[in-house]
Order: sequence, then C-alpha cells, then structure tokens
Amino acid sequence: MNTYKHEVKYYECDRMGVTHHSNYVRFMEEARVDYLDQVGYGFEKIEADNVFSPVISIQCEYKRPTTFKDVIEIEVFISHVTEMKFEFTYVMRVGEKIVCNGKSLHCFIENGRPVAISKRLPELYQAICKVKKD
Amino acid sequence: MNTYKHEVKYYECDRMGVTHHSNYVRFMEEARVDYLDQVGYGFEKIEADNVFSPVISIQCEYKRPTTFKDVIEIEVFISHVTEMKFEFTYVMRVGEKIVCNGKSLHCFIENGRPVAISKRLPELYQAICKVKKD
Amino acid sequence: MNTYKHEVKYYECDRMGVTHHSNYVRFMEEARVDYLDQVGYGFEKIEADNVFSPVISIQCEYKRPTTFKDVIEIEVFISHVTEMKFEFTYVMRVGEKIVCNGKSLHCFIENGRPVAISKRLPELYQAICKVKKD
Amino acid sequence: MNTYKHEVKYYECDRMGVTHHSNYVRFMEEARVDYLDQVGYGFEKIEADNVFSPVISIQCEYKRPTTFKDVIEIEVFISHVTEMKFEFTYVMRVGEKIVCNGKSLHCFIENGRPVAISKRLPELYQAICKVKKD
Repeated sequence: MNTYKHEVKYYECDRMGVTHHSNYVRFMEEARVDYLDQVGYGFEKIEADNVFSPVISIQCEYKRPTTFKDVIEIEVFISHVTEMKFEFTYVMRVGEKIVCNGKSLHCFIENGRPVAISKRLPELYQAICKVKKD
Repeated sequence: MNTYKHEVKYYECDRMGVTHHSNYVRFMEEARVDYLDQVGYGFEKIEADNVFSPVISIQCEYKRPTTFKDVIEIEVFISHVTEMKFEFTYVMRVGEKIVCNGKSLHCFIENGRPVAISKRLPELYQAICKVKKD
Repeated sequence: MNTYKHEVKYYECDRMGVTHHSNYVRFMEEARVDYLDQVGYGFEKIEADNVFSPVISIQCEYKRPTTFKDVIEIEVFISHVTEMKFEFTYVMRVGEKIVCNGKSLHCFIENGRPVAISKRLPELYQAICKVKKD
Repeated sequence: MNTYKHEVKYYECDRMGVTHHSNYVRFMEEARVDYLDQVGYGFEKIEADNVFSPVISIQCEYKRPTTFKDVIEIEVFISHVTEMKFEFTYVMRVGEKIVCNGKSLHCFIENGRPVAISKRLPELYQAICKVKKD
C-alpha cells in the first residue's frame, strides 16, 4: 500500500503559524479515502450500495507542529475489525519525524440501522481482513 | 430587518493573524440564510420544494482586516431581481467601519433546469420583491 | 458557568447531509475559548504573555448526527490538571440528547519549551483549579 | 507554466452533494501559491522580506458544479499589473469543461502601508511583468 501525501495549504495554518489541529482530522479522511481506493472499495462504491459509513470516534495525538508547504506523509492501516466496526490507525510524518498519530472507528448504516459488514458488504469485509495489521 | 452578527473564530484566522479572505464568503452565506429566515422563506422550505438555489457568482472587496473575536455586523439586502435570478448585496462592518463589501447572484434549479422564481416559487418571489432595495 | 451554543452552518454539513465530523473539533475550540473568557483568562491574555497553548491530543465520540440549523449546546469543564498539562471535557447536546462527547489535552509553551502553569501563569492555574470538576 | 490540480475532497462537498462555493476561493489561493513558486518568488520569500500581500478583492463565476474526486485543473495568469496592484485570472476546468472563472486583486503592505512593487520588490515585479498576459 502507498502512503498518502498532503501538502499543507496556506489557509490550513492558524494565528500561531502552524497547521490548525482540526485539519488533521480532515487529512485522516483524505488518507482513508485513498486507502479504500487502493483496496478497491472506494466511498462511491459503498454509497452506491446505499450504505453509509459514519465515523464513531476519532483521536489525534499531536507530536510536532507542521506548517505551510510541509508535506505530511500518512501511513494508514486497519488496526481492528469486528462484524460491526472497523478501526483505522494513522501515522503522519514529515520526513522521518512523526508529527501526529491518529485513530478512527467506523461502522456501516443502512436505512438508519447498523449492518454487519461481513454480511452486507462481504467483498469489502474480505478486502479489509486481508490488509488488516495486528 | 435585523443585521446578522458573526464573531470571528480562532480557526478562521490565518498566518497573518487576520480572518482568512475565503471565510467572508461563508459569512455571506450565514447572513443570507438568516435573511431568508427573516423573510419567512428559509433554505429548508426551498429545498423541501425540491428546488435548489446554486450560487452563480460572488464578489468581495476587502476594505480592512478583521481578527479573532471581532464581531462582524452584516447588513444584507436584495439589490436586483429578475424572473430567473436575484442578487444579494452585503455590507460588513466592525463598529462603524466597513471591513468588506460583497455581492452574490443566485438562481433556482429544479430537475437540473433553471426555473422562473415568479412561477415556481411565487410566495418567495413576492417576499423578495417587497424587501428589494434600489 | 454558561454553556456555549453553536448553530450548525450550511457549509459545515457534508454530502451525507450531516455536520462533518471534523467540525466538532472546531466547536470544542469555540467552547474552550468561551470558557476561558468566563474564567477571566482568555486566549489573548495568554498570548500577550508570550505563551502559546498547543493542543496535545483530542478525542471525539460521535453519538448522534446533527445537521444545518441544529443548535449544539456545549458543556465544558476542566477534568484534569497537573503542573504541565490540563484537560477539557466537552458534552455536546441538541435538546436533551447527547450528540458528541469530547476531550482535549493542552500544555503551555514559552520560547519553544513547556512551562509549569503554576509558576509561569499562577493566576490562570488558580482559576483553573477552582473550576476543576472531579 | 504548469496548470495546478486540485482533487475535490469529501469534506469540501456540501448538502447538495457538490463542492461548496467558498472552497473555490481556497483553490485559487493554492493555484496562486503554486504559480508564484513557478515564477521563483514564493509566499515565504515575500514574507521573509517582511512584506505582506493581502487580497484586495476576489470574484468567482460558477459555471458547472463539481463534486468529490473531480480533478479541477486551474490555469492561472497575471492579467493586470500596476505600480501598486496586480491581478490574477483563473480558469478552472474539469476535463475540457470550464467549471469556474475567477479573479483576485492584490497589493503589498510593509509596516501597515502599501508599497510600490517595482521599488520594494523589483525582482518579483520583473518576474510578474515577464509572465503577464494581455
């Protein structure tokens, strides 16, 4: 799997001159979208199945500030899978140095109710299990 | 009609310490939403009619910078109406001083095609014409 | 202490029609700013002392989706204080229902180095300890 | 000069499922940053000279909606230069089709006062004049 790269934009930096902390949550989404594309099961495909995948929880640990024009390399992997939920882990680096660690937990919803991934989206479930890291 | 107030947030300021210029376009939308609510014809009502109202064009003239915690007072009025389009004008002030002047042009779309406001949304059309300023 | 209110903006909602999850991190900042103002020790005062207060970590648990025009009431309290760090906890509700729970951890930096709050900003430290909830 | 490419992110789309109109103002900034880098006179170099370059005005004409994963190609050129101001013009396309046309006007400020570009930043002035299109 390829890492995802985000170059920090001018409008993403705040009064302290650094990337505003809320933006890392967006970078994580960008990396997740790219990851699912690489797995062969993108957002559009999930939504075309009339299934939505809301975020249940997120967390970020900010290790070092980044700023305008920094290229953040984001390594993504699936760190946990159950019938109903799956978790992504993100390691964000500029050069060799870790700038932020993140996690996000997700489920799938159809007609307002959670669905078992293995039953409703077996293809995605298998793809996810194959790339899962322990 | 009441003016709309937006207090500038920390995350809306950029590396220069001032409100990023793209955010004024968002403040204009906030003020427009509030204005249509005051007219008695809010966004939800328009969308409930299965009609969408895209922005055709916007412009902003930035007169003075604003920053964190500034309260921007936005005066909104409808400056032009035709069968197919209507234009909002915005005057944004902090205290007595104008910080930004804006304009936005809008139409209405149903099933992918522009519709005549006076025929498809006569109530809104009349409400708009009544408050229009020359 | 008064709760902070954020009315969800049109531009804060995503393709699923709900508030994008990254925005809650911004609402938490808004509520934190308001809280410190109420405590009598706002962001400007901290920055005027040449001290910066970066976010060390954040987490959000999303309980229910919110959307355009929902008024999110945010209850904030300080849940943990040490010499070097302090933690905010956020409970976000629409009406009676919890929509999101959050936490954020902070430190203070002067000339690029962490400082002890009790020594460098004793006034803030005392104010924080007084309002701390266990 | 190379065109600049922006792939539309999930979080940049709104409730109507299309790129929120305010984001084009940000894409224009991204393209401008890239353009000045290509000219050999980037934002950091300008700011290192203690000069700031605020936006005086912007305008956008929205021609066609774009959405998640669309790759917007942005052609940038300098359309007007005077001693005190310079104007960028932007043509944004997805494939062959124009999706948005934009303009932005800029000046330079030092110690709170506008400066003549040709005198204060002669290198940039010459670079700009060389690439200017009529």
